[in-house]
Amino acid sequence: MFVNNIPYKTYLAESEIPNAWYNLRADMKVKPAPLLNPGTGKPLTAEELTPIFCEELVKQELDNDTRFFPIPKEILDFYKMYRPSPLVRAYCLEKVLDTPARIYYKFEGNNTSGSHKLNSAIAQAYYAKQQGLKGVTTETGAGQWGTALSMACAYLGLDCKVFMVKVSYEQKPFRREVMRTYGASVTPSPSMETEIGKKILAEHPGTTGSLGCAISEAVEVAVKNPGYRYVLGSVLNQVLLHQSIIGLEAKAAFDKIGVRPDVIIGCAGGGSNLGGLIAPFMGEKLRGEADYRIIAVEPASCPSFTRGKFAYDFCDTGMICPLAKMYTLGSGFIPSPNHAGGLRFHGMSTVLSQLYHDGLMEARAVEQTSVFEAAELFARSEGILPAPESSHAIRVAIDEALKCRETGEEKDILFGLTGTGYFDLKAYEQFNDGKMTDYIPTDEDLAKGFAGLPKIDA
Amino acid sequence: MFVNNIPYKTYLAESEIPNAWYNLRADMKVKPAPLLNPGTGKPLTAEELTPIFCEELVKQELDNDTRFFPIPKEILDFYKMYRPSPLVRAYCLEKVLDTPARIYYKFEGNNTSGSHKLNSAIAQAYYAKQQGLKGVTTETGAGQWGTALSMACAYLGLDCKVFMVKVSYEQKPFRREVMRTYGASVTPSPSMETEIGKKILAEHPGTTGSLGCAISEAVEVAVKNPGYRYVLGSVLNQVLLHQSIIGLEAKAAFDKIGVRPDVIIGCAGGGSNLGGLIAPFMGEKLRGEADYRIIAVEPASCPSFTRGKFAYDFCDTGMICPLAKMYTLGSGFIPSPNHAGGLRFHGMSTVLSQLYHDGLMEARAVEQTSVFEAAELFARSEGILPAPESSHAIRVAIDEALKCRETGEEKDILFGLTGTGYFDLKAYEQFNDGKMTDYIPTDEDLAKGFAGLPKIDA
Repeated sequence: MFVNNIPYKTYLAESEIPNAWYNLRADMKVKPAPLLNPGTGKPLTAEELTPIFCEELVKQELDNDTRFFPIPKEILDFYKMYRPSPLVRAYCLEKVLDTPARIYYKFEGNNTSGSHKLNSAIAQAYYAKQQGLKGVTTETGAGQWGTALSMACAYLGLDCKVFMVKVSYEQKPFRREVMRTYGASVTPSPSMETEIGKKILAEHPGTTGSLGCAISEAVEVAVKNPGYRYVLGSVLNQVLLHQSIIGLEAKAAFDKIGVRPDVIIGCAGGGSNLGGLIAPFMGEKLRGEADYRIIAVEPASCPSFTRGKFAYDFCDTGMICPLAKMYTLGSGFIPSPNHAGGLRFHGMSTVLSQLYHDGLMEARAVEQTSVFEAAELFARSEGILPAPESSHAIRVAIDEALKCRETGEEKDILFGLTGTGYFDLKAYEQFNDGKMTDYIPTDEDLAKGFAGLPKIDA
Repeated sequence: MFVNNIPYKTYLAESEIPNAWYNLRADMKVKPAPLLNPGTGKPLTAEELTPIFCEELVKQELDNDTRFFPIPKEILDFYKMYRPSPLVRAYCLEKVLDTPARIYYKFEGNNTSGSHKLNSAIAQAYYAKQQGLKGVTTETGAGQWGTALSMACAYLGLDCKVFMVKVSYEQKPFRREVMRTYGASVTPSPSMETEIGKKILAEHPGTTGSLGCAISEAVEVAVKNPGYRYVLGSVLNQVLLHQSIIGLEAKAAFDKIGVRPDVIIGCAGGGSNLGGLIAPFMGEKLRGEADYRIIAVEPASCPSFTRGKFAYDFCDTGMICPLAKMYTLGSGFIPSPNHAGGLRFHGMSTVLSQLYHDGLMEARAVEQTSVFEAAELFARSEGILPAPESSHAIRVAIDEALKCRETGEEKDILFGLTGTGYFDLKAYEQFNDGKMTDYIPTDEDLAKGFAGLPKIDA
């Protein structure tokens, strides 16, 4: 039936797992803007960051020059439990779409966290352990990051405290149980356990929460408790660094089968998956060695790239985090509660923001009912129930493949299948029942978020 | 840290996926007893079975002589979407247990059904499609089989009607949504949609159901609706045949790394996983080419092997199915509602029953709290949240490895990790909250089940 001799799944050998992360910033001519101290408006120093983040991670965060960071042996050992992840040729989806395009996806869902988040969780937990810390705090939205961190902490014997966006906590009680099984404590955010949580609840009673709120709470707890640091699953440079393992493996697998993708598509919330997936490809593009079309896909309900402003903003609602220059909807922006899954963050990785600003990648916003239609089609043909986040990329990959059907072009399309939707069945149920709706913020909605942007020009 | 040069995960290449299923019956000196017509008490003929099962599957069911059945190309293509499955060396679990034993598991959970069930689901759906049928009916307990069949039917465009044991339907609403996403209809059993369901509900109002009830309902619907046949996820010879892919792959992977397991452990409900996992190893044992210790693990709450009778019995509660000679607790036996997960079936594969009767394998019954303790330990060390069913095998694998710590023996232990526990979080929640209890039926409880055994001597 399939004449092509490319396998369904291309795996690297364990010995071929990349032994260094690739730092895309080293190849950027225009570096991402530095994080600023919200008090002084000046670039943050390592000294200022170490009360919040682990020391080694601060180094990784601030280093725009070192091209490769060796992956410690202990992290590589952990990676071997679930990596390399397969590069899959979507033969069955291609057939259903009747497209001349060849579709590939890098599948990061074959681990209990259900996503790529584990790649950075184990790295961050490892450096916390190395530093002799007791534990870490974090936030989680859809729950993938919190689960990943719980797994990494269980493995290393670290304490793990997770603030979970309330809407997810309520819709996903089983996510909480996975984290508890791995020994983590899980608190719905906003909570009464922090000053910032109390303040947000007082101002917005009944709020369903946001990543921005949960980040504020987690940071507050880390800073106030000796022996704890805060870790974050997306947005930061260090996270994109760790996630480069996705792109490095994908590229090595493509080299194995002698294919070079024309289009690379990834969903974008804070940018962890997209930044990791595209890293080595964008590196080639920046160095003028190859060209790729790169497309970031975001929800129409939280359109940081396509409708946000490129400006300095707080990463959290409580405005206690550093300022980052990024595409943002304003730290006060909270997506409508009808929004399913992750990708709820108001901002975006500074690295990706700079690349987008410099015209090196495209962005597209898609509505969630069309995303779930793509998810259903993908599940039925490829046999994997995708996460809602990942399904944003599936939507655009399908759209691109259908364009190829019109034009007859035999493009090679790669997308990131970041995770599985096993804990997103509440959203699937809405979709199955025909009760899912779309939400696009009005310009007035956005203006409210923009009004809260700090007055800093850089 | 790990000096052994065996990789964490050994994958076969796609081209190395076995292209034929192995029929263990061909190597059995004492063949499994034939299915009997409950009306006449005589062995069932192919003609009598074809109103219930697809024609090709009837052939596979009755054939005790053909050693290998070629796997059709279309099924092999489907297998390539999620197979080969990895043979994993449990380095991290070994380290936590501080055992000289080497532990391996064949992991079948990397697909959306969450288990090995897909291996037979696609085969059975394929033959139904080949026969020009409209659809299939089935039962599901923990939900893995129903999900697997839904996926296979979606892929082939077949209608799929699932009767789901009521206790699982209520505890696992998200399982239902996965099946619906794949286009299946799902009915809690016992239901008012069938005569047998109405009868059972009248006799046992408030029953939480059992696989035996659900089988009766699914068979009734298949027989009454033209263009439909019934398919079953375990117990039958055909299912063990399809599941032999697990053992064949495991053996090929062991050959690659130059290892021969000493002990092979699998959980046993109806026998689909265990029968598939052990097939080629037991074949060698039967042919006198090698020896292996083989251990079936069952729940203490449903102890077919360890406390059942080897006798002819009905496979279903409604007593409309053929009679099978097997280790059974009686078709009227329903495990206590506090029993978590699958492995609820009152009987056992006739093939495995005969092998056990002939002393070719052992059996052990374990209590569920100790099973969940093993599951938690495994999750925290190996990073995979296991299904409760699979965790029965983990429990005994850990026990065997701990014995090796006592004796200093460097045994190679293989167990079947049949699936993931992502849809079993209700049970994990009970365990996490310290509310899980054990249940061991009394001899009087069992006597009631045995009293219902049909009076047939064969």
